[in-house]
Amino acid sequence: MTIADVIRQLEQLAPPDTAEPWDNVGLQVGDPAAPLSVLLVCLEVTDEVVAEAEKEGAGLIVAHHPLVFRPLAAITTDRPLGRLLTRLLCAGIGVYAAHTNLDAAPEVGTAAVLGRLLELRGGRPLLGEEPGLGLVGEVAETTTVAALAERVGELLAPARLTVVGGGAVRTVALMPGSGGDAVVPAAAAGADVLVCGDLKHHDALEARGLGLAVIDAGHYATERPVVASLAEELRRRLGPDVRVIESGVNTDPFADGAH
Amino acid sequence: MTIADVIRQLEQLAPPDTAEPWDNVGLQVGDPAAPLSVLLVCLEVTDEVVAEAEKEGAGLIVAHHPLVFRPLAAITTDRPLGRLLTRLLCAGIGVYAAHTNLDAAPEVGTAAVLGRLLELRGGRPLLGEEPGLGLVGEVAETTTVAALAERVGELLAPARLTVVGGGAVRTVALMPGSGGDAVVPAAAAGADVLVCGDLKHHDALEARGLGLAVIDAGHYATERPVVASLAEELRRRLGPDVRVIESGVNTDPFADGAH
Amino acid sequence: MTIADVIRQLEQLAPPDTAEPWDNVGLQVGDPAAPLSVLLVCLEVTDEVVAEAEKEGAGLIVAHHPLVFRPLAAITTDRPLGRLLTRLLCAGIGVYAAHTNLDAAPEVGTAAVLGRLLELRGGRPLLGEEPGLGLVGEVAETTTVAALAERVGELLAPARLTVVGGGAVRTVALMPGSGGDAVVPAAAAGADVLVCGDLKHHDALEARGLGLAVIDAGHYATERPVVASLAEELRRRLGPDVRVIESGVNTDPFADGAH
Amino acid sequence: MTIADVIRQLEQLAPPDTAEPWDNVGLQVGDPAAPLSVLLVCLEVTDEVVAEAEKEGAGLIVAHHPLVFRPLAAITTDRPLGRLLTRLLCAGIGVYAAHTNLDAAPEVGTAAVLGRLLELRGGRPLLGEEPGLGLVGEVAETTTVAALAERVGELLAPARLTVVGGGAVRTVALMPGSGGDAVVPAAAAGADVLVCGDLKHHDALEARGLGLAVIDAGHYATERPVVASLAEELRRRLGPDVRVIESGVNTDPFADGAH
Amino acid sequence: MTIADVIRQLEQLAPPDTAEPWDNVGLQVGDPAAPLSVLLVCLEVTDEVVAEAEKEGAGLIVAHHPLVFRPLAAITTDRPLGRLLTRLLCAGIGVYAAHTNLDAAPEVGTAAVLGRLLELRGGRPLLGEEPGLGLVGEVAETTTVAALAERVGELLAPARLTVVGGGAVRTVALMPGSGGDAVVPAAAAGADVLVCGDLKHHDALEARGLGLAVIDAGHYATERPVVASLAEELRRRLGPDVRVIESGVNTDPFADGAH
Amino acid sequence: MTIADVIRQLEQLAPPDTAEPWDNVGLQVGDPAAPLSVLLVCLEVTDEVVAEAEKEGAGLIVAHHPLVFRPLAAITTDRPLGRLLTRLLCAGIGVYAAHTNLDAAPEVGTAAVLGRLLELRGGRPLLGEEPGLGLVGEVAETTTVAALAERVGELLAPARLTVVGGGAVRTVALMPGSGGDAVVPAAAAGADVLVCGDLKHHDALEARGLGLAVIDAGHYATERPVVASLAEELRRRLGPDVRVIESGVNTDPFADGAH
Repeated sequence: MTIADVIRQLEQLAPPDTAEPWDNVGLQVGDPAAPLSVLLVCLEVTDEVVAEAEKEGAGLIVAHHPLVFRPLAAITTDRPLGRLLTRLLCAGIGVYAAHTNLDAAPEVGTAAVLGRLLELRGGRPLLGEEPGLGLVGEVAETTTVAALAERVGELLAPARLTVVGGGAVRTVALMPGSGGDAVVPAAAAGADVLVCGDLKHHDALEARGLGLAVIDAGHYATERPVVASLAEELRRRLGPDVRVIESGVNTDPFADGAH
Repeated sequence: MTIADVIRQLEQLAPPDTAEPWDNVGLQVGDPAAPLSVLLVCLEVTDEVVAEAEKEGAGLIVAHHPLVFRPLAAITTDRPLGRLLTRLLCAGIGVYAAHTNLDAAPEVGTAAVLGRLLELRGGRPLLGEEPGLGLVGEVAETTTVAALAERVGELLAPARLTVVGGGAVRTVALMPGSGGDAVVPAAAAGADVLVCGDLKHHDALEARGLGLAVIDAGHYATERPVVASLAEELRRRLGPDVRVIESGVNTDPFADGAH
Repeated sequence: MTIADVIRQLEQLAPPDTAEPWDNVGLQVGDPAAPLSVLLVCLEVTDEVVAEAEKEGAGLIVAHHPLVFRPLAAITTDRPLGRLLTRLLCAGIGVYAAHTNLDAAPEVGTAAVLGRLLELRGGRPLLGEEPGLGLVGEVAETTTVAALAERVGELLAPARLTVVGGGAVRTVALMPGSGGDAVVPAAAAGADVLVCGDLKHHDALEARGLGLAVIDAGHYATERPVVASLAEELRRRLGPDVRVIESGVNTDPFADGAH
Repeated sequence: MTIADVIRQLEQLAPPDTAEPWDNVGLQVGDPAAPLSVLLVCLEVTDEVVAEAEKEGAGLIVAHHPLVFRPLAAITTDRPLGRLLTRLLCAGIGVYAAHTNLDAAPEVGTAAVLGRLLELRGGRPLLGEEPGLGLVGEVAETTTVAALAERVGELLAPARLTVVGGGAVRTVALMPGSGGDAVVPAAAAGADVLVCGDLKHHDALEARGLGLAVIDAGHYATERPVVASLAEELRRRLGPDVRVIESGVNTDPFADGAH
Repeated sequence: MTIADVIRQLEQLAPPDTAEPWDNVGLQVGDPAAPLSVLLVCLEVTDEVVAEAEKEGAGLIVAHHPLVFRPLAAITTDRPLGRLLTRLLCAGIGVYAAHTNLDAAPEVGTAAVLGRLLELRGGRPLLGEEPGLGLVGEVAETTTVAALAERVGELLAPARLTVVGGGAVRTVALMPGSGGDAVVPAAAAGADVLVCGDLKHHDALEARGLGLAVIDAGHYATERPVVASLAEELRRRLGPDVRVIESGVNTDPFADGAH
Repeated sequence: MTIADVIRQLEQLAPPDTAEPWDNVGLQVGDPAAPLSVLLVCLEVTDEVVAEAEKEGAGLIVAHHPLVFRPLAAITTDRPLGRLLTRLLCAGIGVYAAHTNLDAAPEVGTAAVLGRLLELRGGRPLLGEEPGLGLVGEVAETTTVAALAERVGELLAPARLTVVGGGAVRTVALMPGSGGDAVVPAAAAGADVLVCGDLKHHDALEARGLGLAVIDAGHYATERPVVASLAEELRRRLGPDVRVIESGVNTDPFADGAH
C-alpha cells in the first residue's frame, strides 16, 4: 500500500473540494508513491508529533491543521516551519492535511463526532448545505446551560471552560475549533447555546445581546475527538497492512500553565 | 459648552486620522451643536450603559468601541443595534467613538496607560512608528512570567487569566484588547512575554513555537484602565462646566459564569 | 395586522431579489412586529411627507426611493438624513423602500403603469428578461413624436417637457425616472422614441446621432403614476384593516420655479 | 507651422496631466507633423462640424469633448463614430481634445471664462486645489437667485433655463457642462447658488434639502463661452500663420424642439 | 454578396464566442453592408499585405492576428498602426480577425490543420474541452523526435527549427503560433513531444525537467497552413461570386537574416 | 564565516529592494547561521548543478534565477522542484537567488557586464532610473548590425543567433535574458539595435514596424557572463576563507540539438 492509496480513502471520507476556498489541504509533504506501513493521526504537526512519528516508524502524518497554510516563498531553517519541513523531508515522513473538508465531513467530521458525543438529534449543518460547517441539533431532554457545560467538561476534559449566559437548552449549535465567530449564525439557527472554542470578547458580547449562551471548551478539546474517530475509520478501510496510530501528544497550548 | 467643543478636545488627545483605515471613529450619534453638561466615559455602549447615561443625565457617551462599526443599510428595531440607536436618538444622547486612535494615543492611550500601570520603561509602539498600536518596554528588574502574571492579576482583576509558557522576563509587549494576534510582532520585537486579551489556540501555538510567553488577562481587563485615564484628562481639559463620569457598568461578557 | 404582514404582500408584488445589485431596498426604518392601521405611499421621504404621515397617523411609509441609499457610518442630526431618521424613529414611523424591484414589477411596476397609461401594446422589458427594467411596446396607431409629446404632457402634467428629434412613432421605449441613459438600448430595441426623465446633454446628442427621438417628461412625472397603482393594489390585498393613503405632497424639485 | 506646434501651445494653456484620470485628451486623430493653416475651435465634433471644417479648409479641430472617449476595439462604418473617424482620416483633418484639462485651466478654462462673464470675484476651484474643476466666487453686490437667473439667461441664451430654490446670493458656485452633480461640494463651499448644466432630479432634491439654490442653464450654454476665449488666446499665440475659426454650428441637442 | 454575408460564414466556421476572453476578434475595420467581390486571407495585416489587397482589388482582409489588439484611444498617423488604419479606411478595405476562435475551430482551425498535415490520429484539444486550443494526437507509427523534426522541417519549411530533447515519439502535442508556454499541459497530457513556436528559455528548461521534447518550428511556419485551408473552405462556401485569394506575402520577421 | 555574512555582501552588490515587485529573491533554502567554506555561482539550479555543489562541498549556491518563484503550497517529491528542494535540504546546501536585483546592479549586474564586454559607452538603464533594468549605450565607432552580430557571436558563443533587420549601428540597447519584449522601450530610447534573448514573433514583427534591428543571442548566452563577474567580486569581498566556484554546468536548454 502506498501513500496514494491512503489518500484515495481519505478523499472519500473528506473530499478536498469541500474545503473552504481559503484553505490549503491535501498532501503537503512527501512522495505519493512511497510504500506505507504506519500512519499517525493528529490535530497539529509539532516537533513532539514528528518525534513520535519517527519513533513509531510512521511514513505519513494525517493532520487536521495544515502544516503549510500560507504558500511558502522560502524554506529556511531559521524558522520553526522551515526546521519542521526539513526534518520531515529528510526523515521521509509525509504530511496530509484534512482541515475544513474534515470539519464538514458527514460521518467522521469534527462537528459530526462532537454531535454524537453530546447525543444530539436531527443534526444539520450550521453553515451552508450538507456538507457544511458546524452542526445544529436537539438534546434528548431539555436541560440547562450549566448542566450541559458540566457534561461538556466531563466528556472533553478541556484545559479551560468558559460559560457565557445561561437558561434552558433544547437546541445546541456546535462549531468545534475556532468557532467563537459562529455566534450570529447560531442565534439565527434558533440555537439556545453554542459549543465552541476560541470565543472572543466581542463575540461573547454579541451573544449576550442576542440572548445566546456560549460554552467555550477550547479549540483543542472540541476538535480532539475527531482523531480517534478518523483513526478508527481508517483502520476499517485500510485493513491490517497499515498500522494506524492516534497521536499521544497533547498539542493544546493552554494545557499547562492555565490558571 | 457643546458636544462639538468636547470633540475638539478629544481629537487633540486621539486624532481621528491616526485610527486604522478599517475603523469607524468619531461622532456616531447625536447633534454636535447640542449643549453638554454631563459626559459618560466607557468601553462599550450596552443597554445598561445607556440606562446609566439616562439616569445621570449624560448628553454624550464617549466609548472605546464603535457602536456603529459596519455602515448600516437599515435601522430596524428588531435588532439589538437598531433598538440601541433608537433609544439614544430619542433620548438625545450622543455617542462618540475613539477606538484605534485611542489605542495609539501617546499619553492617554490604551497601551500607554497599561504600560504605566505595569511600570514599564522605554516604551515604544509594538506596531508602526509613534503613534502606533501596542507598546514594548522593559521591566525595572528582571522578573519571571509567573511573577508578572500574578502582578497583572492583582492590578487588573481579570475574569480569566491564562498563561502560556514561562521563563525570565526583561522585555514586555503589551497589546490590550484583542491583542492575541500580536504574537509574531511581539517575538520580532524581542519581547519575552506578551500581555494581551483574546488569545486564540493557533496564536498560542505559534507563541510556543517562537519561545514567546503570553499572559492573556482578557480583552476587557486590559482595556479597562483607559476609562479612568481618559476621564481624568477630560476633566482637566473641560473644567467644571462638564461633569465627566466613568461608567460603573461591567461590560465584560466573561465577568460572571466563567469557570 | 403588522408591518411584517404588509411586507409579505409588498414582496409578492415586487420581490426584493429582483432589485439591482447596487440598490438598497426593504424595511429601512421601524419594527416589523409593530401593528399597523394607516400606511402612506409616496415616491420620496421628505420632511413634508413625514409631517403628512404624522398627521394621518401612518405607521409605515412605502416609498419608491430608498431613504437610506448608501450605508450609514453615523446618524448625526447636523445632516438632513440624520434629522429625518431621528424624527421617524422617535415617532415610531417605519419606512419601506421598493425601488428597482418596483420598477421591474410586471403589474404594478413603474414602467408597466406608464405603459398602460400610454396604451402601449405588446410590452416587454427594455433591459434584460422579464422582470427587467423599462418597457418597449407599440402604439395602437402610428403617430408622431410631437403628438405623443402632447399626449404625455396631458397625462403626466410634467413641470418640464423636452423633446429631442421628431418623426413618425410606432415603437416606444419607456424608462421612467432617471432614464435618460437608456438611449443606446432604446435604439438597439428598435424604438422610435424614448420617454424618460433626467435626459443629459451627451445622451441627447447620442440619441440624435442614432436617429432616436426622446421625450423627457421629468423624473417625478414619469414615476408619479406608480403611487396610485401601488396604493390601489395594496388596498385590494390588505383589506379594510389598513387605510392606504397616497401622499399629496409634490416632491418634484422642479415643480415651482421652472422657467 | 505644424499640428505639433499648435499642440505645444495648447498644452501650455491646458496641460494634459491636469485632466481627470478617467478622461481621454490630446491628439485623437491626425498626424502631428502635418502643416497647418486653418484651425477650428468647437465643443463637439459632429457631422456638421466636420462639414464646416472641410468647407473652411481646416486641418485641425480643437474640441472640448473627446471624439474618442472609450478606447475603440474596432472602427466600422456602421456606427456614427466609425463614419466620423473615417471621414476625418480620409479628409486629413486632425482632432485634438482638451476636456477636463480645459475645464480646469486657470485663464482660458471653462469655469474661469464663465466666472469672468458673471463678474465673480475671488475665484477659487470648487473641487480640489488650483488647477481644479469648477469655480467659487462672490458677486460684486448681493443679489437674488431670480435676478442672477435672469442675468444668466441674457448672457448665455440657453435653450432651457431651470431654477430650483431662491433667496439672496452672495457666493456663487459654477460647474459648467454636466455640473449638476456638484451640489454637495457647492453647499460645502458655502455657495448660495450653483450655476450648472444637466441637473438631475435627485441632485435637485438634495440641493433643496441642503438649502442650496441651483440655476441649470444647460450643458451647452454654460460651456459655449470657452470657444471664443480659447480661439482668441490661440490667435494671440499662433500669430498670422494660422487662421483660427470659432465653429458656427450649434451642437446643443436641446436647441430646437424644446418646449 | 456583402461583407456581412461573408461574416456569417466565418462565424459558422469559427464562432466569435469561442475566442479567449482577452482576445479581440470580428470585423475591426470597414462597413458590413459593403458589397464584396475579392477577399484576401492572411496571417498578419502588414503594409505589404495592404498593398497586395489594393492591387488585387480586395474589399476584405481576413487575418488570423487582430490588427487592433488593445483598444485604441487615438488613431494618429505618426504610429504604424494609425497609418495602416487610415490607409485601409480610405481605400475602403475591411479587416476581419479570426484569432483564438480560429485556433480552436474543429475543421479549419490552426491546430486541426497542422494535425492533418502531420497525419496525427485521435486528435483532442490540448487545453479545455472541444472546441479548445491546441491538439494532442498519436502518430501512425512510433517514430523519434529527430525524425519528426525532419518531417516538420520538410512540411513547414520554417525559417528556424529548434529541437530540445529526443527519444521515441508516440503522442504529439501541437500548439501552433506562440505555443512554447504549453509545456506543462503537454506533459500532463502524456505527450512525448510538443510542436510549437516561440519557445522561451524557461519553458525549454521546464520541458527538459519534465522529460518532454519540444520542436520549435516558429510561430509563422506552424500557423501558415491555416491560410490555404481557410481560403479553400471559404471558396467552397462563398461560391463563384467572391474571389478568395491567399496572401503571397511572407510576414515571418525571421524569414531572412536568420543565421 | 556564515551564510548570513555572505548574504550581507550580496545585498550590498544587489540590494533585494531593487528587485521587481513580482520577483522572489533572497535566501530561499538553508540556514543563515550555517558556516560556509565553499560557494557555487550559477544561473539556474538544476539537478546537475546540485550534483556539482555536492561534489565540490559547496554549502551555498548563489543563482540568478529563483529556485522558488511562485510560493509553494506543498513540497512533494513527485514533482521536480519538490525533489530538488528535498535533496538540497537533506544535503544542507543553501540557495540564494539574486534575480532582477542582480540584473539592475550597477557594477556586477547582468546588463552592466554585457555592456562592458561589448565596450559600450555612456551606459544608462533602458527601463527606469538607475538602478534600472537593461542598458543603452553607444559603440565607439559606428558599425553595422551584421558586424555587431558577428562580434556578439564571438564573445558569447550562443547556441542560436538570430538577426532581425540591419543597417548602421551607433546606439545599442541591451536586455539580457528574456529581453525580447523590450522592443518598444528600445526604439523609444533611440537604439539602432536591441541585443537580447527569447525574441518572439510578434516582438520581432513590431521591431520591423518600428525600424529597430534585433540580435537575439539567447537567454543563456546573454546572461552567462554575469557568473564570472559576480564570482570574481565575491572572491574579492569574501577573502580566502570562502572558495568561490563558477558552475561548469551548461544549463542552456538549447545547447545541443539546436539546428
